[in-house]
Amino acid sequence: MKIFEILKKDPKSNARTAILETFHGKIRTPVFMPVGTRATVKGLLPKDLHEAGSQIILGNTFHLMLRPGADVIQKIGGLHKFMAWDKPILTDSGGFQVFSLSEINSITDDGTEFYSPYDGAKIKLDAARATAIQNQLGADIIMCFDQCPAYNAPQKEQEKAVERTLCWAKVCKKSHANDRQLLFGIVQGQTDNNLRQNCAEELIKMDFPGYALGGLSVGEGTAQMLSTVRFAAPLLPENKPRYLMGVGTPVDLIQAVEAGIDMFDCVMPTRNGRNSLAFTSQGVMRLRNAAYIDDPKPLDSQCLCYCCKTFTRSAIRHYFNVGEMLGPILLSLHNIVFYHNLMDKIRENIENGTFANWAAQALQSPAYARSQITDDNDTK
Amino acid sequence: MKIFEILKKDPKSNARTAILETFHGKIRTPVFMPVGTRATVKGLLPKDLHEAGSQIILGNTFHLMLRPGADVIQKIGGLHKFMAWDKPILTDSGGFQVFSLSEINSITDDGTEFYSPYDGAKIKLDAARATAIQNQLGADIIMCFDQCPAYNAPQKEQEKAVERTLCWAKVCKKSHANDRQLLFGIVQGQTDNNLRQNCAEELIKMDFPGYALGGLSVGEGTAQMLSTVRFAAPLLPENKPRYLMGVGTPVDLIQAVEAGIDMFDCVMPTRNGRNSLAFTSQGVMRLRNAAYIDDPKPLDSQCLCYCCKTFTRSAIRHYFNVGEMLGPILLSLHNIVFYHNLMDKIRENIENGTFANWAAQALQSPAYARSQITDDNDTK
Repeated sequence: MKIFEILKKDPKSNARTAILETFHGKIRTPVFMPVGTRATVKGLLPKDLHEAGSQIILGNTFHLMLRPGADVIQKIGGLHKFMAWDKPILTDSGGFQVFSLSEINSITDDGTEFYSPYDGAKIKLDAARATAIQNQLGADIIMCFDQCPAYNAPQKEQEKAVERTLCWAKVCKKSHANDRQLLFGIVQGQTDNNLRQNCAEELIKMDFPGYALGGLSVGEGTAQMLSTVRFAAPLLPENKPRYLMGVGTPVDLIQAVEAGIDMFDCVMPTRNGRNSLAFTSQGVMRLRNAAYIDDPKPLDSQCLCYCCKTFTRSAIRHYFNVGEMLGPILLSLHNIVFYHNLMDKIRENIENGTFANWAAQALQSPAYARSQITDDNDTK
Repeated sequence: MKIFEILKKDPKSNARTAILETFHGKIRTPVFMPVGTRATVKGLLPKDLHEAGSQIILGNTFHLMLRPGADVIQKIGGLHKFMAWDKPILTDSGGFQVFSLSEINSITDDGTEFYSPYDGAKIKLDAARATAIQNQLGADIIMCFDQCPAYNAPQKEQEKAVERTLCWAKVCKKSHANDRQLLFGIVQGQTDNNLRQNCAEELIKMDFPGYALGGLSVGEGTAQMLSTVRFAAPLLPENKPRYLMGVGTPVDLIQAVEAGIDMFDCVMPTRNGRNSLAFTSQGVMRLRNAAYIDDPKPLDSQCLCYCCKTFTRSAIRHYFNVGEMLGPILLSLHNIVFYHNLMDKIRENIENGTFANWAAQALQSPAYARSQITDDNDTK
């Protein structure tokens, strides 16, 4: 069995369906991966994620190394046991969080030193340690430690970040201690095509089992993000999985699949859900809105999730209005199902050879309209 | 079919098992009723309460009349539809909350006027309105509007409160508009046996289908509470359900069942669960405690709830430590199962004729020790 087996290619775009085989099972791609930063997808029990159709979820090295600590999780039996999730898990390396969440003390070619956002402690993190920690956590897919500069950082800094990312990728590959975990390389280079191309080519020489595009959806804007993905995705080996990190809206996902992306993660469904925003077949809805106070309809009559089969808009609005946990819980659940349903439709249309037509229509549909969505930086 | 059918009486105490028949189904008593004040048991989905074995849950007139409003819930189809719970529901009348949560503007024989804790609006609530609102909400069991004075209020105030409670009970009975909802009378009188006896006798003349002891566990202390229950419970008709409102710890429940009580509600399992306190077969545990940081054991190895079958103490401690919703969710669920399991054991031992011996042992068991439990006033 190959790690990544392509099942079907779309004749009119770079979209494809495939099976990605991991130590904890197979994943059908294109796939959306709910974000479980601190060993939990916020507010949702593992059984609810199973029922929602989640195939793989994320954990985060940066957060888990600080709380509860990689040694603790290893002692408990690894991240799968710790968070009670027996399907595949992917951990990000923590690179993104070091640069987005922490006060940095120093960055050198050897690694980073930063102050913990939990208690101010001075912490060192470098490529070897990020890999060792991910080995301890035991996720099925782990990521190289990368440098992710601000989107508007000077050209020189972007170049340096690519250089370091490549240098660190070599260290990660060398440090990686087992063959149960797939180590993916991360392409940096912001919206600079030359930098992206150079970074991709160098990483490909190192021969990773999968590749990610990092450093996108960090403020550069949707058009720039998309043009970079369209340029960079085809640079990556066709026979290996391509992962677009931290993206995005439903429309972003459809367009990135067209460009050849197989894997996505984003806090958008859960973070927006906690803030009362629901993705529905009729477009996004803000459930705090007083208009729903006595609305007896289900949130989305076309959705079969537990929230939509069980509660009225009126009740959901009430829970948000009085600050009851059930509001965030129900909309997180629904939004994750919405994202999974979107990926189901994408895979189905690729399989049927109807993806291009479907995508053209979908991009016009109110269900996937960008309006009102909080498209902020994904800091996880 | 009778409304209340006694199945078995304990030969050595006033404990009994029975079936209470309501419009939404039968309830096996003695029963513990989880508190769902604002149309949700905090953090728990209805399907999880079903799985936990909840037979009946509470709603609260005071909170629901203010948010989202009784008209809204009626328009949606009643409280069962609104909170997605198709088994029995009991609503308290709001009397307790008017006196414990609000700034009171006036109390007269005609009713109360208070300021809403949500927005400061001046609100009137009296016996007729409390009953009309409960008719709108549509719970299976509804409560008379009562006056609950502070436990240390002067004797004269206690007497006046009993007088008003009796006067209001007549109005509630007269106002009650249907025969699908069982209206229970509430005995007030604090720890004064004469007042309790007088109140009970007068209510019994009015012939309610069930009776509650109110105004207890409000600061008078466990010994006083228990002696009042032991005095007052046998005053109530043997062939009707007896409900002890807002009580209590596991030991309180065992002792009150011995005294002849059939029904209980209390925020203790859920409120304590949200604060990291778990009731277990080994006694109460505070899951925030650093001692559990790398404890690989289940919370309670003798418990079969989802939390105990799925997560380690280490993970639960982590969720509380970093403020993740899963901590409160998991311990609320576990604690409710613990309370339901306790009632299962109580019923089983009454059925087997072993209740007295079992209760004597249980009261010595670490599982039901009082230590560490936050025994604060139940303000729901």
